[in-house]
Parts: sequence; C-alpha cells; structure tokens
Amino acid sequence: MIQVIKFPSRSDYSELCARPQIESSKIGSLIESIFNKVKTDKDKALISLTYEFEKREIDTILYTEKEIDDYSKATDDDLKIAIKIAFDNIYKFHEAQKLVEKRVETSPGVVCWQKSSPIEKVGIYIPGGTAPLFSTILMLAIPAKIAGCSEIVLCTPGIHPAIFYTAKLCGITKMCKVGGAQAIAALALGTPSIPKVYKIFGPGNQYVTAAKMHANSMGVAIDMPAGPSEVAIFADETSNARYVASDLLSQAEHGVDSQVFLVSTSETLIHDTIHELESQLIELPRKELAKEAILNSKFILVNSSDDAIDLLNEYAAEHLILACDDPEKISDKIINAGSIFLGHFTPESAGDYSSGTNHTLPTNGHARAYSGVNLDSFCKKITLQSISKSGLEILSKSIIPMAEAESLQAHANAVKVRLNNGL
Amino acid sequence: MIQVIKFPSRSDYSELCARPQIESSKIGSLIESIFNKVKTDKDKALISLTYEFEKREIDTILYTEKEIDDYSKATDDDLKIAIKIAFDNIYKFHEAQKLVEKRVETSPGVVCWQKSSPIEKVGIYIPGGTAPLFSTILMLAIPAKIAGCSEIVLCTPGIHPAIFYTAKLCGITKMCKVGGAQAIAALALGTPSIPKVYKIFGPGNQYVTAAKMHANSMGVAIDMPAGPSEVAIFADETSNARYVASDLLSQAEHGVDSQVFLVSTSETLIHDTIHELESQLIELPRKELAKEAILNSKFILVNSSDDAIDLLNEYAAEHLILACDDPEKISDKIINAGSIFLGHFTPESAGDYSSGTNHTLPTNGHARAYSGVNLDSFCKKITLQSISKSGLEILSKSIIPMAEAESLQAHANAVKVRLNNGL
Repeated sequence: MIQVIKFPSRSDYSELCARPQIESSKIGSLIESIFNKVKTDKDKALISLTYEFEKREIDTILYTEKEIDDYSKATDDDLKIAIKIAFDNIYKFHEAQKLVEKRVETSPGVVCWQKSSPIEKVGIYIPGGTAPLFSTILMLAIPAKIAGCSEIVLCTPGIHPAIFYTAKLCGITKMCKVGGAQAIAALALGTPSIPKVYKIFGPGNQYVTAAKMHANSMGVAIDMPAGPSEVAIFADETSNARYVASDLLSQAEHGVDSQVFLVSTSETLIHDTIHELESQLIELPRKELAKEAILNSKFILVNSSDDAIDLLNEYAAEHLILACDDPEKISDKIINAGSIFLGHFTPESAGDYSSGTNHTLPTNGHARAYSGVNLDSFCKKITLQSISKSGLEILSKSIIPMAEAESLQAHANAVKVRLNNGL
Repeated sequence: MIQVIKFPSRSDYSELCARPQIESSKIGSLIESIFNKVKTDKDKALISLTYEFEKREIDTILYTEKEIDDYSKATDDDLKIAIKIAFDNIYKFHEAQKLVEKRVETSPGVVCWQKSSPIEKVGIYIPGGTAPLFSTILMLAIPAKIAGCSEIVLCTPGIHPAIFYTAKLCGITKMCKVGGAQAIAALALGTPSIPKVYKIFGPGNQYVTAAKMHANSMGVAIDMPAGPSEVAIFADETSNARYVASDLLSQAEHGVDSQVFLVSTSETLIHDTIHELESQLIELPRKELAKEAILNSKFILVNSSDDAIDLLNEYAAEHLILACDDPEKISDKIINAGSIFLGHFTPESAGDYSSGTNHTLPTNGHARAYSGVNLDSFCKKITLQSISKSGLEILSKSIIPMAEAESLQAHANAVKVRLNNGL
C-alpha cells in the first residue's frame, strides 16, 4: 500500500523527510586489503582481482585505441544521433559556466582576482551490470574536457558498444577494463597502466562507494557522497496525473531503494496518480523493482503551496519536479535541491539524458550542503593578488596591528621590511 | 643546516615535493566516544567534556549578546580600525564572486540555468591557544554572510577581545564557548543550544581535525582536508633577499611543521636569503618554532624559470609568492596553487589579513584538486530547467533511444506520455 499522509503538522516534517538509514558498510577490511594488493602488485593485482571477483580474464589493463574504435562500431545509428544531441546540449550548458575573470581593486593599489585551473588528472568510474550508463560518461567527461583536464581516465567493466562510442566522442584519454573497488584503488594509487588521479567521479555499488570513501580519506578528492537516487514532485490541481505517475516510475525503476516523494495540494491529483501508477507499472520491464520502490514512497497532502515549499526544502531532493502552474514562483523559494524541473513538460528524464544539465546530483539530503557536478567540479579556483608599494602602505595599517595582536610578529615584519627599504 | 639542492633532475621533482607523512591519527576511538557522549547527553556533555579536557568551568553553552558586547569592548581602537579595513576588503572581493544568472537555451524550447543558494546552517571553529585567530573569523563569516547563510555558529574556546569584536562585526548568529572535538560533535549532531549545521569550517588541532573527518563521514560537509601551512617562493636575480627571508619566516613562525620551499634561478639570491634569515630570525618572539621549521625547509636552485614552474606545479603550494619581475608571465603557467602573490610588494601576510582574498587554503598538495574557501564554499549551485512541449519533442529523439538503450523504459515513457497527450 502506498502511504498517503494527509496534512502533516510542521513538527512532523523532519521525520517525514528522513531517508532510510544506510547501514554503515562492514566491508572496510576488504577494501583495505584490495588497496594494499593494488599498492604492492599494481597491474598484476588488477588482473588477479578481476578474475577473483568477476571471473573475467583480462591480459591487459587498458583498451587500445583500435579496440575502442572496433567495439564502438556496433552502436546503432539512431543511438549515435541521440548521444550526439545530448553531447551538444551538455557541452553548451557546461561551457556557459566558465569563470569570467574579474579583477577587483579592493583598496587603492591592491588588485585581487580568481582564475580557474583544471584538475590535471581525473578518474571516472562507470559500473557494468544491466543498465549500461553511457549517459554518465557524457555527464562527467564533457565538463572534464571543457575544464581542460589533461588526463581523463575511464574505468569500467561495462562492454556495451555505446560506452565505447561515448568514451571516444568525449575525448577520454585512457579507458581501463577494470571495475569494482580495485579500479578505484588503481585510480587513487596509480599503476604502470593507470595514472594516479587527483579526483574520482562516478556511481557504483557499495564496494565502489566504500573504495571512493577510502580514497577520499587518503586525500584523493571525490565528486560527492553517494546514496540512492530520489525524486520529489510538487503537483497541484493543474497537474496531469499521467505525467506525474510516469515521473515517479522513472525514478522508481532505478532500484528498490529509490526514493519517491509526492507532495500535493490536491487530493484528487493524489488519487488519480495512484490509479495511473497501477496501469503504467504493469507495462514496465523493470516492474518488480519499481513496484517495491513505489510501495516505500510517500504521498503527502498539504494545505498550501507554502507548506509544500517548507516540506520540500526540508527534504532537499536530488531531483525536484514542479509540475504546477507558475513553477518559477515556487522555485524561487526552493533553497535545497539538486536540480529543479519546471512545469508540465519538463520530466526528470530530460535532465537525466539530454537537456544539458548534469545528472550527477546530491542524494540523501546532501543537497543541503553539496552542489551537483558542474564545470567547477573539474577545476580549482586559485586566487591571485598584486600589490603596489603604495597599496601595501595603506594595507599596513591593517596588517601590522592584526598580526601583532595575533602574536605573529614575522607576519608584521614582512610588511615592515618592504616599507622601510625600497628595491 | 638549511638544505640547498642544486639543479635537481626532473625525475627528482616528485620526491622533492613530497610532504612529511602525517601519521594517521590513532585517536579515532576517543573521537567516537566524544560524539556518543554529545549525542546522548547533549549540552550536559559539552559542559562536562569542557571540564574534563580543559579544566574550564562553564555553566552555559552560548555567550549572550550582552556578554559578546562587553567582552568586545576591550579591543584596542587601532586594532578595531585594522579589522574594519580587512573586513571591507574581504567583503568586496567575496561579493564580486556572486553568481551572475545566465539562462542557456541549449536547444529550441529547452532553457537551463544555475542558481546559487546559501547553505542554511554553517559552523565555524576557531581554536584557542596563544595566537587568537580572529582573522579567520573574518575569512569564514564574511562569505557566509554574503552567501546568505541564516545560521552562522561560531565555536571557540578563545577569549581575546578581538574575537568577540570580530564575531559581532561579521554577524555571527550564535557564539559558543565550547572548543575541541566536542564542539565539532555539537555542530554535527545538534544540541538544545547549538543547531546542527550542514557544513563545518575552520582550523584546529589534531582532535578538531579528526572530529571534522568523523563529521564528514556522517554526511556533514567540511571546508577541506587539513594539513600544516606552507609557502613556496619563486625568486630570481631581481628579488630582494630581505623580503624573501621575511616571507619565509612569516610562514615558519606558524609552527615547527610549517613547510617552507624556496625555488630560485639565482644562487646569489639563495645565499643572501640564508644570510638574511639568520639576522631576522634572532629578533622574533617565536624564533624557536621558526628556526625548526626553517631547518626542515628546502632551497632549490634551478636552471630556468620553466624548471621552476614545473617544480612549483608539482609542489602545489598553499601560498605561492612570485617574487620576480613580470610575475604574471609566470602565474599564467601555474596550474596548482592555493593563492598566488605577485611581485616584490605582495607579501603572504597581506592575503593572510587584509588584501581581500581568503586565507583558508588547501595545504599538503591538495591544491591539485581543491580550491581555497570562497563564496561558493557557502552556497550550493542548483540547476533548473524549463522545457516547452515543442522543446521536449526535439529532445525526445535523444532521450527515448538513450533511455531504451540503458534499459530504462520508464524514463522513455515519461517523455512518450507527454507527447501523445496534451494537458
């Protein structure tokens, strides 16, 4: 039975928005031993671990350019066109995020600015399994390329032709056959075949997630903490229950742990959506997964759009669909969300694939503090400053008393020696 | 003896740039027990832990507004002026970092954009101890205020009047007397007095650092991984050895683990700098600390500015001073650094206090992947999109084949139901 909650009081919002506790994984020692093996035996460890965990025999670590070419050829022509449309839109949106350099004279003779510099070496992980997530290659490799990352290493056990096609299209610099925690270990530590990278991106199972956390604790940056995917929808009396149901299902089919959260000011809409869900669900190939996710979902009837906004800000959804009239009025008041989809013709699946926005987004309430992947995820912002002698003279009235009050005399001296003695 | 290394070969760069291994701290179980106590006994735990670790008796957790006012009054007038100058410059530089909204029509009828949204609740930690780091309050609270964070909680055991003055000036919303790992636990978990925050900023000792890592593993964001402070200086034959020595010392006085790294194309400059160091060092109140740090430093003579650039990019310094002529020619080629100081009159201490840039910067080589604190550190970027029916029709040629190739039929259906059936 779908849970329908009517007019919850504000004191219940926090409880309503709580995600299921993710069991803190007990695989730490396994992950540590995988890292140790990769550190010691490098490429040889990758070959043996791939056989041990996947019963897959590989004799080299990287695909050759010719292999990538050959495997990509089996990609269907329509799919190539589809990928190219998505590529162009994602490229346009992320390119528009480039930093415009702005020099600020904070005080006469004191000029400060930021520059954006690519993270030189990045790693992208794409899982194997039933759904070949070539779309995630687009989402991670395109901004890496725009940022100017010189080494973009893709690790994947996946073998769908579109994975190879997309990798080639996006300018992946190295493509590696290894998957699982051992792939993350290789990216974090480096091997003769796989360069050590400074940041690791991409989804994965609990082993991959734990390995990314382990890499992070060693000082390698990661995209964001992982959690099950989720959608929240706000629907009012103008919403189309068929559309709303289709969006809920497109989230639910990801897996049994997918989070689905519907907030509405219309009881009729909730009723109709439940009816629509039943008829759309039976047609789905992944109906067993979707059904279980839907049974864990929450449908919440609220008194007003203001209540809905508060509840949605408390929830901090990865994806938030505003399936209502005048959605910008609502979105202006949303402060916590990964990505917002406005209006009746903006399904989440547009952003998952082709509209141009990124689909790597913060789950599990992390949207309260984290952004989704964007161009900045592949850059560092370096600050720069240039001060003239007269500029330093003005600043000295601030620097010297503050440094001395903090008992840092040498900090004050660095200004004093410059002002008493020209070059 | 200061280590002078002459004309190292490129294969030695990586070894030369390695930081001392930071011993992975063995205080994990202590930190966990502190978090458990704060989780169970909340404010009461904070009072008892403050007595246990610091022998400091507190009977309330927060300072009242009146207390903050009263304690701030002892701040010296010159120091108030000094702080206000710094405040204005930091404000100007960080305000200029605001996101300019840019709507991108990635495809006809498909409009995508980003908006910046403040992280609602943030925590700032400022250590107690000999050096009262009120300057760090400026660096963290000013961008939090500009971002629009509604709750800015300062935890500090520090009691210097300037800490209270700065907290008030910057609009801190709650000021808490508690320090150490228990303060971090309170920010991560929440207590009746201290709100649970979504991101924690600020420096601290090994206990604070370990507590921040623990909070991070629970899903609370943190500013960046911590490490000892460091400066790298590039100096050529135009550099003034007195200035260079003063900058090296202003880093060295932070502590014995401070990293000091001089790269020069001029042997004379290196020689003169060593001489200057000796005479400036004996005057310093913190000379014992500074001396030990200097003895661990590396002075490296290179053949050319190109060699220097490669070495400095490999090092990825927190602070990089380009004490040379035409420093922009060099800085354009620097891809890894926290903050860059250009020319002969731009000492690091300007950025530490008053020029406007932030002094919370990535150490320990993390500048390869991390930015220093900036306005974005206090915001999330939310993506938004609005698609018309005809816009979705065009995108459908991309979304549907991709979703079906990824075996996600419900994703394709969310588009299909919309195109077969108007509202």
